[in-house]
Amino acid sequence: MPMILYCCNVKSIENQLMAAKSATRDIQRLKDRERSEVLIELAEVLDQHIAEILRANEQDVLQLEVNDPKRDRLLLTAARIGDLCESLLAVAELDDPTGQVLSSKELDNGLLIEKKTVPLGVVGVIYESRPNVTIDVASLCIRSGNVCVLRGGTDAWHTNTVLVDLIREVLQNRGINPDVVQLLPTDRTFVTELLEATKYIDIIIPRGSQSLIEFVRDHAKVPVIETGAGVCHTYVEASADLDKATAIVANAKISRPSVCNALDTVLLDRAVAATFLSKLSIPFGEAKVEVFADVEAYAILKKGGYAYLQQASDLDFGREFLDLKCSIKILDGLDEALVHIARYSSKHSECIVSQETASITQFMQEVDAAAVYANASTRFTDGGEFGLGAEIGISTQKLHARGPFALEKLVTEKWFVIGDGQIR
Amino acid sequence: MPMILYCCNVKSIENQLMAAKSATRDIQRLKDRERSEVLIELAEVLDQHIAEILRANEQDVLQLEVNDPKRDRLLLTAARIGDLCESLLAVAELDDPTGQVLSSKELDNGLLIEKKTVPLGVVGVIYESRPNVTIDVASLCIRSGNVCVLRGGTDAWHTNTVLVDLIREVLQNRGINPDVVQLLPTDRTFVTELLEATKYIDIIIPRGSQSLIEFVRDHAKVPVIETGAGVCHTYVEASADLDKATAIVANAKISRPSVCNALDTVLLDRAVAATFLSKLSIPFGEAKVEVFADVEAYAILKKGGYAYLQQASDLDFGREFLDLKCSIKILDGLDEALVHIARYSSKHSECIVSQETASITQFMQEVDAAAVYANASTRFTDGGEFGLGAEIGISTQKLHARGPFALEKLVTEKWFVIGDGQIR
Repeated sequence: MPMILYCCNVKSIENQLMAAKSATRDIQRLKDRERSEVLIELAEVLDQHIAEILRANEQDVLQLEVNDPKRDRLLLTAARIGDLCESLLAVAELDDPTGQVLSSKELDNGLLIEKKTVPLGVVGVIYESRPNVTIDVASLCIRSGNVCVLRGGTDAWHTNTVLVDLIREVLQNRGINPDVVQLLPTDRTFVTELLEATKYIDIIIPRGSQSLIEFVRDHAKVPVIETGAGVCHTYVEASADLDKATAIVANAKISRPSVCNALDTVLLDRAVAATFLSKLSIPFGEAKVEVFADVEAYAILKKGGYAYLQQASDLDFGREFLDLKCSIKILDGLDEALVHIARYSSKHSECIVSQETASITQFMQEVDAAAVYANASTRFTDGGEFGLGAEIGISTQKLHARGPFALEKLVTEKWFVIGDGQIR
Repeated sequence: MPMILYCCNVKSIENQLMAAKSATRDIQRLKDRERSEVLIELAEVLDQHIAEILRANEQDVLQLEVNDPKRDRLLLTAARIGDLCESLLAVAELDDPTGQVLSSKELDNGLLIEKKTVPLGVVGVIYESRPNVTIDVASLCIRSGNVCVLRGGTDAWHTNTVLVDLIREVLQNRGINPDVVQLLPTDRTFVTELLEATKYIDIIIPRGSQSLIEFVRDHAKVPVIETGAGVCHTYVEASADLDKATAIVANAKISRPSVCNALDTVLLDRAVAATFLSKLSIPFGEAKVEVFADVEAYAILKKGGYAYLQQASDLDFGREFLDLKCSIKILDGLDEALVHIARYSSKHSECIVSQETASITQFMQEVDAAAVYANASTRFTDGGEFGLGAEIGISTQKLHARGPFALEKLVTEKWFVIGDGQIR
């Protein structure tokens, strides 16, 4: 395979960004079927090059300390590459999000006005260790007729280089401008250049830690879709079925603590606090969940002999743990829960466990979050679970996309006005 | 009427922003009908207070020099207030944009997942002289269940104060928290505070000059919808019906040159340049349109004795004139036109006049703009003309809203997930 070289001595990424902008025309000319075929072929090519990908990945992984938690995020295995290939085939099968007619009308003067979905143009993605993002983003962008410029983590440079080389090779062999997918050099100064490139970039999506997302939001001139941080609460109301509540809270915390839709804080009505905590102690204890409890919950759990117990400080509320850790607060009734959530939520996923319809309705109306739940685990907030296919992330802002940010939102709108000499 | 006082000695607008955030709950609890009734009553109240509004407006207008062009933008008259009242009644009639079910499905596990439209929350608007914006924005926000904080121009302070007092009085008399609509003090430092208030503000919309919009985009941490600047081209292709082309170009330039959908640049196929320019000279000459022509167009117009002629410099392309001025460039064919537009367009409204279906299709597909036209004046890009009702502006960015930004886009989405103990 001819390695495509990425020059590391460049002073600016402007040439790459110009090439990206210019490539929008090339990808937008492809038919729906042609875009899907790229992904199907890419799945085959990845499968054929597993050894090469794993070699490059090993180079990256070996640069980290053995016990660095980044290692797992960075690591590719044959099985993980297999998952990526499956995901490519799944994205190839999704409906074309472009060319959808959103509205169509003929005015009295004979003007025909149609609003249709069209690709965004150039999508910039800034992410950290995980090299699977490279394939996920490139496949969603190709499927939706968008060009992407990828700024992956320095850690994953060798892996990302091989992956992007393979993508570009597939594009080139099919007669498509390979600049449809580009990997940017990882020098920090180029991040700023990317964030300010309103001439070339239509949207920036940061994927990763809260600090990365805040940096991007604070420095970008290009419009940003914020994805990521989830400080998720589950409120167990006095009327709740406490067995269901236990199962929901345990699942939301334990099933996959490292992801954004995992539970961070339990809010608990005083009336059922002791009973609920004695039930919750069983699955939490088995999973060794470290609990940061407020004074009252601490006393109850202490008395019950819960082993992994700490006193909560104020910093443990509004904290995204991404770990087998959880804060618990006891309060009185829905209004107090709503006030707490309004103060500490990151507007991702929030849940009430209750059997009172009025409480459920009020909670779901008044909590300001991408997803509001009644009587189910917040872990369902996910593009796949919501039936949208692969996702770029969970948007926690309100413009354009909210909640799972998937293929269907990688488009903008365009008004087509067809006349026969009409003037105003 | 009890004047509500705005303290001008405050050091921060945080209290106002907190009050705005807190008022979201009050407006979101109102029913559709109640929100419409506020607007209907406000129309009556404005009508009853015309004299008072005009007195305040006179105070503002008298502070400007007699020949300051801002004067007309700032000026209210009884007729203009009448238009505002009519517009209030029209907005009251529009369909409720909230509570629309965008998708609804039941998963195999019994989870019910619905995506619905909900109000954005707190909308911040930064604008310049025109006091009608105060009423337009407040009415659209109230209708859609949003709180608004208004940062109007210093020039319009007295007028805006009276208008916002009247709005708040109507709210208060109906038992609604008046902080649903707030006017911010005009000190410049508060603009920065507003742009960074991610805790309190959900979206910022700048309305006004290109420099205002750029300032907001470059300094905001809150998500921004860019509205405004329109550098609009009309490309007259060789196959065009030149009489229709003349009418379209003349209308796009002359009917209302001060607005963003007015024509700025004519691109003209060489094959029809001389014939078209001789036709165009008649309406352009009558309206005294000052033409900034490239070398070839200059020679043709000069020979034809066109009176209001200048040689174009490169700065006259990509320039939004907002005046009876227009640049003209002669070129060869669609590809050259597409390259010119890609370079100079502000992605607002772009038009081709042609009788070739292939050219029209390619132009409309490839030009990257909110609205693309075939054979009609770009002056139609407008919420009212497109059947959306009153608009906050024309969005020239690609996220959330593109083209006329009207009531239907003053919402975000929210996922409602209803379960019965489901875990993942």
